[in-house]
Amino acid sequence: MNGARVLMETLVRCGVDTCFTNPGTSEMQFVAALDDVRGMRAVLGLFEGVVTGAADGYGRMKDHPAATLLHLGPGLGNGIANLHNARRARTPIVNVIGDHATYHQQYDAPLQSDIRSLASPVSTWVGTVDAAGEVGSRTLDAYEAAMGPPSGVATLVVPADMTWTEAGSPAGARPAAAPGKMNADAVALAAKALRSGEPAALFIGGRATRRDGLVVASRVAEGAGAKLLCETFPSRLERGAGIPAVERLAYLAELAALQLDGLRHLVLVDAKSPVSFFAYPGKASNLVPEGCEVIVLAGAGDDVVGALDALDGELGGGTPGGGGSGMSRPELPSGPLTAQTAALVIGALLPEGAIVSDEANTGGIFLAGPTAGAPPHDWLCLTGGAIGQGMPVATGASVACPGRKVLSLEADGSAMYTLQSLWTQAREGLDVTTVIYNNGSYAVLEMELGRVGAEAPGPRARSMLELSKPDLDFVALAKGMGVPARRASTCEDFSEHLGRALAEPGPSLVEVMVGRGLG
Amino acid sequence: MNGARVLMETLVRCGVDTCFTNPGTSEMQFVAALDDVRGMRAVLGLFEGVVTGAADGYGRMKDHPAATLLHLGPGLGNGIANLHNARRARTPIVNVIGDHATYHQQYDAPLQSDIRSLASPVSTWVGTVDAAGEVGSRTLDAYEAAMGPPSGVATLVVPADMTWTEAGSPAGARPAAAPGKMNADAVALAAKALRSGEPAALFIGGRATRRDGLVVASRVAEGAGAKLLCETFPSRLERGAGIPAVERLAYLAELAALQLDGLRHLVLVDAKSPVSFFAYPGKASNLVPEGCEVIVLAGAGDDVVGALDALDGELGGGTPGGGGSGMSRPELPSGPLTAQTAALVIGALLPEGAIVSDEANTGGIFLAGPTAGAPPHDWLCLTGGAIGQGMPVATGASVACPGRKVLSLEADGSAMYTLQSLWTQAREGLDVTTVIYNNGSYAVLEMELGRVGAEAPGPRARSMLELSKPDLDFVALAKGMGVPARRASTCEDFSEHLGRALAEPGPSLVEVMVGRGLG
Repeated sequence: MNGARVLMETLVRCGVDTCFTNPGTSEMQFVAALDDVRGMRAVLGLFEGVVTGAADGYGRMKDHPAATLLHLGPGLGNGIANLHNARRARTPIVNVIGDHATYHQQYDAPLQSDIRSLASPVSTWVGTVDAAGEVGSRTLDAYEAAMGPPSGVATLVVPADMTWTEAGSPAGARPAAAPGKMNADAVALAAKALRSGEPAALFIGGRATRRDGLVVASRVAEGAGAKLLCETFPSRLERGAGIPAVERLAYLAELAALQLDGLRHLVLVDAKSPVSFFAYPGKASNLVPEGCEVIVLAGAGDDVVGALDALDGELGGGTPGGGGSGMSRPELPSGPLTAQTAALVIGALLPEGAIVSDEANTGGIFLAGPTAGAPPHDWLCLTGGAIGQGMPVATGASVACPGRKVLSLEADGSAMYTLQSLWTQAREGLDVTTVIYNNGSYAVLEMELGRVGAEAPGPRARSMLELSKPDLDFVALAKGMGVPARRASTCEDFSEHLGRALAEPGPSLVEVMVGRGLG
Repeated sequence: MNGARVLMETLVRCGVDTCFTNPGTSEMQFVAALDDVRGMRAVLGLFEGVVTGAADGYGRMKDHPAATLLHLGPGLGNGIANLHNARRARTPIVNVIGDHATYHQQYDAPLQSDIRSLASPVSTWVGTVDAAGEVGSRTLDAYEAAMGPPSGVATLVVPADMTWTEAGSPAGARPAAAPGKMNADAVALAAKALRSGEPAALFIGGRATRRDGLVVASRVAEGAGAKLLCETFPSRLERGAGIPAVERLAYLAELAALQLDGLRHLVLVDAKSPVSFFAYPGKASNLVPEGCEVIVLAGAGDDVVGALDALDGELGGGTPGGGGSGMSRPELPSGPLTAQTAALVIGALLPEGAIVSDEANTGGIFLAGPTAGAPPHDWLCLTGGAIGQGMPVATGASVACPGRKVLSLEADGSAMYTLQSLWTQAREGLDVTTVIYNNGSYAVLEMELGRVGAEAPGPRARSMLELSKPDLDFVALAKGMGVPARRASTCEDFSEHLGRALAEPGPSLVEVMVGRGLG
């Protein structure tokens, strides 16, 4: 069995049965192996940012990795931004990169580059196959590194000669993931803080923003009279009717400071201590109020829900709570379409079990309220801040969860990074409805320009933030990639188009004209 | 003057007056400075691959750098593939990357990553501004590193606080570039080889494929009865009527081996010793025939044309030659459109002074002959093999040379990497005609699949190489970005559409349906 087959068979034995790919010559043996290896689904992306973002969306929904297949350093380069987001989400991914044959590397052929240097900043583990006999075991290493705990992006570099050389047999069955750990001292410390009667908050993230974590966390917070907050951009937040609600920390440091104001104890549950997204002149980077104690109850790779359960027990465990509110939707609005009214339409129509990939950026700031009482759904956020995540993540989430509707909420600026996702959605017949917020600008930067101290920008500065002259026509762009699309300029339009898109299976796109700027 | 202004003013003093950019929050001070700094033109790209590729195209035409402005590690990541190509082309670029404020970096905010690790593989120089007072001098360092010799990608990382802090004055006037060197021993060695009477070839690349280099090189080769060959993918090849013709080394190692067969002496003139683009089972990587002596006449950063002149003198210099052939164009063909007939149309219509950005890949293999006798033009190639280069390079070349028509020849597969280039072309009113070869496949990979030893691919393997189901509609895609487009299915269509596009100023696109596969 050649190395390409050994790698694929090993992945399948580990339960890794989906490979997002944009292969090149050095990966052709893997492509050829697709017809020989049972149980491996290959999904083609027209650009590597689609591939890595899809693997991120898939892994967030499955808590189990997909594989990627990328072409040397430049192919990895194109996928780096979304691997960066996946690293921040701690998404398990087996990131396979083809390289030149070992004996070819001495010649510094045109596509040669330092793959390890490119991969390290976005990987929790980087390995290389140095001998064909190692293909199986190195693949298993990569799988285990991806699973953790903590889980993450495991990059495996495979020289082309390893794929066409006889490489023995696939490595053994899927290994059991090691269990997460719990820190009894941290539990006691957190309990003491919450019992103190002083202002306190649970700040949750990572694994704690799923339903089971939210149920316990909200019970603990309620019992202790503490605030419950979660990360600004959770990797996957379960929410909606019947699931305990959690307030997300605001993106704007000024608002986040208000949410944290006066706290004396901050208990971190799989979340990093809150910091400002960017630095601004004369403003604090560290958002923890002065004199506030920070306690790490559980961190990356720990038994997060176990730690919350233990804390609940330590505090008496008597609080009922943890049930969340009942269903309540806004009424369908009428009249002019704005980011605000668009949010009402989405809240009114969001289907049960939907997966929302949210990269609406400024267009999405009004979404939280109107969707809070919708039927249960998942919300996937821009974990690493590298735009171009939303549409690929929607693509991968849909591959992972074929029975569920995916709603991909996209800002115009970030949509243009990885728009090729639409073609993959069309090709695979994925049940993804994309909503493009077309406001003709990088609206977030119009806001940020003032915040970094550059008031009253001149015309040349402003033109760098405008997505106009010419305007982008997302209906035409979608058509060019085989996805049916409609444009909405009023609430009535949007309700009709979104309703139809959500009712019909398969990919579709609605472009909502929300007016220039934050409107 | 704040750091952002000092950097921009210093660049302008060095003659760097064009900045391709896709900025984010950490670069907002640079954006604000655009209205204060005279003489800096900012060109917005909707994706960083457009930005870096445009800087490559600009630098190849000007032999002087443009600046980029990229947003932290992920923004750089998106630009890596085209920086890789620029590195291979040795294009001068001042690659400016914004970073978090120095005091913010300790917090590992979401967008933080190891920028140096990402930049090193694609840069000849990486520097960081560590204090505001250094902004001017570090900018000058970056400019000098970009200019060389040898020229290259100089990456300057600028923390945000350096841009908003008082930073003194811009650094002094534009420094004179150091002259290239010449190696007299190499000249003597090459002369001896060429006088030996044994089969010999000049293998030229880099700076030697411009008109002045070609004139001397062809005279030397003709006088010595030696072959004249150039790199497979020259960064910029001047060609056409009146310019000495040079045969490009074939991409396929099998064909390249035939071109080099029997040689006893190979004189490298700013070109690397020929190697196979990829490794293939059982085939040689090193294309130099056994027993053939390799002599480096001039390498990166040397005085290449000076070395050729010296060699010419050493050999007597009496050969006239070096004039090239007269103009001769094919007749406009009629009937079915294929890669072959499309090449005849292009050869018949290519305007004088055109700049051709060639990423037609398999669609372009018939172009050399029919365009050889067209009026003088420049030909820009895929130097590093990282696809997604062609449209950005066309964009940058047009910014550099506003009086010249740019013809951007694109394969469908690679077009989908950096298609956003069209928007920048529309916004800047650039005189670029794009021709998309739509064959519905990654045709080069269909060929490569067999060459790596995977014969008779199965249906799943084949589907990974097909750009169909759905078909891409480039007319719609161009429309979505504001570029007028037409589709051609016959030679008559293509002649008409291309003729019109070349006659009218401004961007336009013609999609040529050349049939599936190699056509």
